[in-house]
Amino acid sequence: MTDLPEELPEGWEARGRQATLFRRFTFERYAQTRDFVDAVSALAQGGGAHPQNINFGSTYVNVTLDPTPTGQADVELAARINAIYPPAER
Amino acid sequence: MTDLPEELPEGWEARGRQATLFRRFTFERYAQTRDFVDAVSALAQGGGAHPQNINFGSTYVNVTLDPTPTGQADVELAARINAIYPPAER
Repeated sequence: MTDLPEELPEGWEARGRQATLFRRFTFERYAQTRDFVDAVSALAQGGGAHPQNINFGSTYVNVTLDPTPTGQADVELAARINAIYPPAER
Repeated sequence: MTDLPEELPEGWEARGRQATLFRRFTFERYAQTRDFVDAVSALAQGGGAHPQNINFGSTYVNVTLDPTPTGQADVELAARINAIYPPAER
């Protein structure tokens, strides 16, 4: 693992050879899950970047973040996603 | 594999022990991918059901459909998803 900061945002773990970040978010209802997927996508698009992968079902959303162009873990995006979880309507 | 109709909607394949259906949809741009995810979710919610799992990245959307309550493959939902691919804005 390279270019990984010592402290990651809460709940995030590093996966893979590159500085990829992963976190699983859980919800009680599908509507909440959908709202969070929408919010994460909107947030990421606003920053010009987007998660490498979003995997969601009824009550969970698994988010994987690519490293930044400089090869560092995208801790900033991870923290911004944390900030909208749980969503206001939860 | 049980309760699987002889003919599946184009592009769909059966996976797993139950009558689960899977299809991968590909796109040229992330915006198209996002639009399709939104459309699939809206479509499924309108029908009172939703995909078991949606897994998407920049240019792909993998959709897995649960069997219906009667144990049959959800061919109807698969066909409805096919009908909105490619999206109009593509």
